[in-house]
Amino acid sequence: MKEIKVGIIGFGTVGSGTAEILVKQADLLRQRTGLRITLARVADRSADSLPPEFDCCAFSNDADDVINDPDIDIVAELIGGLEPARDFVLRAIASGKHIVTANKALLSLHGSQIFQAAAAAGVEVGFEASVAGGIPVIKALKEGLAANRINVIMGILNGTANYILSRMTDEGLPFATVLADAQARGYAEADPSYDVDGIDTAHKLVILMAIAYGINISLADVIIEGISRIEPIDIAYAKQFGCRIKLLAISKNYGDHVEARVHPTMVPEEHMLASVNGAYNAVYFNGDMAGNVMLYGRGAGGLPTGSAVVADIIDTARNIAAGCPNRVPGLSFKRDDIVDCLITPMAQLTGAYYFRMSVHDEPGVLAEIAGILGENGISIESVIQKKRQESGPVPVVIRTHAAVEEAVNLALGEIDSRDFCTSKTVKIRILA
Amino acid sequence: MKEIKVGIIGFGTVGSGTAEILVKQADLLRQRTGLRITLARVADRSADSLPPEFDCCAFSNDADDVINDPDIDIVAELIGGLEPARDFVLRAIASGKHIVTANKALLSLHGSQIFQAAAAAGVEVGFEASVAGGIPVIKALKEGLAANRINVIMGILNGTANYILSRMTDEGLPFATVLADAQARGYAEADPSYDVDGIDTAHKLVILMAIAYGINISLADVIIEGISRIEPIDIAYAKQFGCRIKLLAISKNYGDHVEARVHPTMVPEEHMLASVNGAYNAVYFNGDMAGNVMLYGRGAGGLPTGSAVVADIIDTARNIAAGCPNRVPGLSFKRDDIVDCLITPMAQLTGAYYFRMSVHDEPGVLAEIAGILGENGISIESVIQKKRQESGPVPVVIRTHAAVEEAVNLALGEIDSRDFCTSKTVKIRILA
Repeated sequence: MKEIKVGIIGFGTVGSGTAEILVKQADLLRQRTGLRITLARVADRSADSLPPEFDCCAFSNDADDVINDPDIDIVAELIGGLEPARDFVLRAIASGKHIVTANKALLSLHGSQIFQAAAAAGVEVGFEASVAGGIPVIKALKEGLAANRINVIMGILNGTANYILSRMTDEGLPFATVLADAQARGYAEADPSYDVDGIDTAHKLVILMAIAYGINISLADVIIEGISRIEPIDIAYAKQFGCRIKLLAISKNYGDHVEARVHPTMVPEEHMLASVNGAYNAVYFNGDMAGNVMLYGRGAGGLPTGSAVVADIIDTARNIAAGCPNRVPGLSFKRDDIVDCLITPMAQLTGAYYFRMSVHDEPGVLAEIAGILGENGISIESVIQKKRQESGPVPVVIRTHAAVEEAVNLALGEIDSRDFCTSKTVKIRILA
Repeated sequence: MKEIKVGIIGFGTVGSGTAEILVKQADLLRQRTGLRITLARVADRSADSLPPEFDCCAFSNDADDVINDPDIDIVAELIGGLEPARDFVLRAIASGKHIVTANKALLSLHGSQIFQAAAAAGVEVGFEASVAGGIPVIKALKEGLAANRINVIMGILNGTANYILSRMTDEGLPFATVLADAQARGYAEADPSYDVDGIDTAHKLVILMAIAYGINISLADVIIEGISRIEPIDIAYAKQFGCRIKLLAISKNYGDHVEARVHPTMVPEEHMLASVNGAYNAVYFNGDMAGNVMLYGRGAGGLPTGSAVVADIIDTARNIAAGCPNRVPGLSFKRDDIVDCLITPMAQLTGAYYFRMSVHDEPGVLAEIAGILGENGISIESVIQKKRQESGPVPVVIRTHAAVEEAVNLALGEIDSRDFCTSKTVKIRILA
């Protein structure tokens, strides 16, 4: 029976989960592939040794011991971050190793360099684990939906942000309270900006768009807004409108241009994405032939993400054994067919909006607001003006029909500059 | 550029959808595969000719013209049913063609014969389209989740049944009314038993279990109950309990034995499967490494199902071009590793139940019912006894804690035989 040897760089959450799966499921992998897929080496800078269940596997603190081991067929880069991950991956490619990685930051920023190097060396780069953890979404896009032009991608791609919004929704707590609790429980990083500001979600959207549309795209093309300005009152109004607030990645493909944005969004409760709660992820597609398809599952964690890493290892091992590396193009389209594509400027996006203004409760304020919106071509669907409270400003909540972002920004700029307005208007887009 | 030629047998909904995709998406398929995948021949017994957009494609009324065409690499069997589909598939295999099929009845009844013949001939049998239409669920199980032992499969696999239950839920209408309307609109067959009695769902469950667990299983192993006894009152009680009634395929894998059943089920509203409405399908897995994963999409229709057929055609074309047929085992496990497995007898299944009894409104009836349940070891979670109506029987609704099916059947047999009981108790299982 042919043996395929795997080396892992990085023995953190995902690295140790991957190692555990390779050892525990060795029989299963043999039953499915007819191959012996073995964990040969692990390198981790900060560990002293491996736990006893990995006795059969060599360990060192030096990634070069994996990269330069002539017996190793597949290198799993599981340290994350840009450097030294990029250096390790490029050197492993140069020494003829196939790569499997969970590194969305690396791929969304340096993907083209890495795939070019892999093509030149004739090796594969698997990245199922880089988006949505244990959900086989990359394979679905590259193979399962290969007969489709993808029109729409929407995703809940960051478990930390979704966990925070879910708890704010279920418990009525403010953002800062839930975040602090999530940090105390280890669900959120000490520096949470990567998750709550939408950057991690944008990394993943870039990867999905590249393989869904066959285009060159980079992180700078994505419009990004995070969830830190969402308040319990917004979540309460969302409920009143039959919606839940989710941090969504949204992309639409118009053929000659594409949208790419990450922002909090009011999702109608009857939409499947509204039911994705807690640390779960989901990706929703519209394909021109299959119609709407959604995949749902655990977006993080050592074993779920390890499941995706090992799925790529299995794929690559099968290709090595069958002598057909890069049987499926790494980026889903043949290299010559990947094109540049215009990105829709933010100002030209259209959609319905929720505005929450804080105003002095004076006669005529609503008329002024409505006037400014009307002058900018923004049509109001409904207004909620709460009764005067004990003292202080009152909220005015407005839902609009479809409006153009540029007009919205002009109108809100004017409204926010008026004396009756006590703080910047909160603006949340509503999913149609 | 290498050309791969496809022949289609059957130009009904799925056959014409598949043909349309092959023609319309020819450029896309070339961009993704580097191959020219062309529709060379269509055979259909009852059509006179093909629409003009398929001019480049030969047509006949005789399936043998496809099966015996030496230029054809892949035959798509899209006529459905057992015969002559089985005969066509076996003869196409014998003449060295790779097979793609959407035929769940054929595979769930004659799968082992077909896969044995394909193995002997060294050809592939793709069947993504046989389960859940456009949702790439077979690929997810065979490849995306290949690192997992699958513990649980649950699915909404029949769009007609789900459409009927969704309308009963949303509109409060009786089963017969919705069914008649669905038939008038062409959403349900003249003979709806295949869909509403759970047989079609069971066919698909058999296919999923075979590839998820690596076991031999046949349709006779599945316990099947349909939805025709569900009444609006049951749906109303389900709502009161925070549940929706769905026709679920459910299988659990205990290692040495497996459960296999199809029946109406009360699904808690917060479960993702409860949100799957209308003609949509969904399949929910628990993998030992990835955890819970769900795939959702259109389970029927020419283009969604055609999308799955063409995904298999692409896969097979890639394998032909790369010289690696059966790179992934047809049934997900190597043939020697597929085992027989015990099926849990229905009587030994455990779970919570909803009972709706119709009784004469007399003192002491509830005490008698509770006594009989208690004697059979069935513990009551809640009881709802409605006020006396104008005349006639009253419903008694009981939710139980986990109970054994055998005890439930004994208890209900006894209750239904008592004089106070006016008709057979309706029993619906509740998803934990």
